[in-house]
Amino acid sequence: MADVLWISAGAVGAYFGGRLQQGGASVAVAVRSDYEAVKANGFQISAAAGEFNFSPDGVYRSAAEYPGTPDYVVVSAKVLPWINVPELIRPAVKSKETVIVLIQNGIGIEDAVAEAFPENEVLSTVAYIGATRTGKGFVTQTGSQRLIMGKSGGGDSEKGRALIELFKAGKVEAEFTENVAYFRWKKLLWNTPFNTISVLGGHLDTKQMCDRGQVEELCMTLMQETAAVAASDGHVFTAEDLTSNMEYTRNFPPYKTSMLVDYEAGRPLEVDAILGNVCRIAAKNGVKVPHLDTCYALLQSVSPKGDK
Amino acid sequence: MADVLWISAGAVGAYFGGRLQQGGASVAVAVRSDYEAVKANGFQISAAAGEFNFSPDGVYRSAAEYPGTPDYVVVSAKVLPWINVPELIRPAVKSKETVIVLIQNGIGIEDAVAEAFPENEVLSTVAYIGATRTGKGFVTQTGSQRLIMGKSGGGDSEKGRALIELFKAGKVEAEFTENVAYFRWKKLLWNTPFNTISVLGGHLDTKQMCDRGQVEELCMTLMQETAAVAASDGHVFTAEDLTSNMEYTRNFPPYKTSMLVDYEAGRPLEVDAILGNVCRIAAKNGVKVPHLDTCYALLQSVSPKGDK
Repeated sequence: MADVLWISAGAVGAYFGGRLQQGGASVAVAVRSDYEAVKANGFQISAAAGEFNFSPDGVYRSAAEYPGTPDYVVVSAKVLPWINVPELIRPAVKSKETVIVLIQNGIGIEDAVAEAFPENEVLSTVAYIGATRTGKGFVTQTGSQRLIMGKSGGGDSEKGRALIELFKAGKVEAEFTENVAYFRWKKLLWNTPFNTISVLGGHLDTKQMCDRGQVEELCMTLMQETAAVAASDGHVFTAEDLTSNMEYTRNFPPYKTSMLVDYEAGRPLEVDAILGNVCRIAAKNGVKVPHLDTCYALLQSVSPKGDK
Repeated sequence: MADVLWISAGAVGAYFGGRLQQGGASVAVAVRSDYEAVKANGFQISAAAGEFNFSPDGVYRSAAEYPGTPDYVVVSAKVLPWINVPELIRPAVKSKETVIVLIQNGIGIEDAVAEAFPENEVLSTVAYIGATRTGKGFVTQTGSQRLIMGKSGGGDSEKGRALIELFKAGKVEAEFTENVAYFRWKKLLWNTPFNTISVLGGHLDTKQMCDRGQVEELCMTLMQETAAVAASDGHVFTAEDLTSNMEYTRNFPPYKTSMLVDYEAGRPLEVDAILGNVCRIAAKNGVKVPHLDTCYALLQSVSPKGDK
């Protein structure tokens, strides 16, 4: 049986970790603020497909408490400057056989981990899910629940495919790809403009961003600049990809982006994963992104500081 | 004696109108919401130089009620899309001898008036003053109280110089210039970056804008783009002008920009006068201002709509 240690299991981790256990893996979790509740009762998950309880195969306060050598260490922490993922996982990565799995937003998020653990395989994962912590150990999941996983840097992975099979056995819409970077950029093509403008434009939902002339044009400009950076990184999106992204959003029922939800809750924003690293890759590759640069400066300024 | 009708006499109008009367002019006012209070008691002005009462030589609800033919029609209304200055003043501009005086922020604000009254002289005025309406007919003025006035389009003006003499007799620091456009751009060189970022950067005072690395850099970039537009309009500012603008602001006691004050009070912002017209002049002259364009779209989006 595959031994999995899931670190920083928030709403996303509780949902996918529970499904992974249902698929046949042994899944232990490291949780911080909800430790007592999860230790006592596990996670109560109100999912789109029905309620379920996830009683982890071990509940720890941190990776250091985990007694074994896991096959997979999974991290679904937010990407924030003061969350040091290598430090978080280091106590559990005792063997070069342990695979590190990152389920996080943005681009360039694997670099620090790959550098800290050069002998370990790193699997980069893009998640499409709406999951919210509604109380200590309580999670609500709505809409899709999809994972696309691939080897950081590209290529095939036996252990990655094995993990995907376990997720699929747990009824997750999961897929292995040899080109996960493409899917990261594809998600950013939406996240970068819409998350950014939803906050900076003054609490705008998706429909408002597609309806107000000036911000609509700015969303498109940010998307074009993001696509130009993606192209400089080897991932080409067409003009049709961009316009259909806008059309899809315009015709979808209005909702708040995850960054706007964080902003309104006073939580820090994933500014660097979503926007800053795009600007940095642009600078490295000589791509001019003045509209993204402007938003990056403003978003850093409005993002609440500190670990909340 | 010079007959002056002052239209939309808010805090700035009450202060300078009162000083103009003290200087020897006959000053009537058109006021809207504070009509009853001003009709009964005039304006009570708590000025930096001491308290004074300004009892206008006539108090009207609008220009249409003014019985005579004024020598000067002065407008100190905010520059907002739904405030139509030509319509506001038209009933009082019965003679081509009447001089129209605009005391307003921004650039390109004279165009509509010059077009509507091609035979009338238009005096464009830049004001440096901190004046706040603290109640019906009550105004507080702090700091400087300076006017720079010139003929719209440039050149000398006998009637402009005569009006300046009256302001000076009323102890206003007033100056006539043959090149008022230069002073408009000079004020914008500060207003455009700092007013904009104070709002978009998340309620930042002047010191915070000069201290936070990323927004400080963005302020400088916006100032450089504004200077490039000014240069394309014939007004050259040096790199030293820009750095000294930043240095001055960094070393001045922190305060909130007028746009941030408006924003926090839920009032609409002078987006077009301060930012939009700069972007429009840039487009007309072929100057690329992507950072200003980005802020313009965002500022329009966050500005409260409607007449408040």
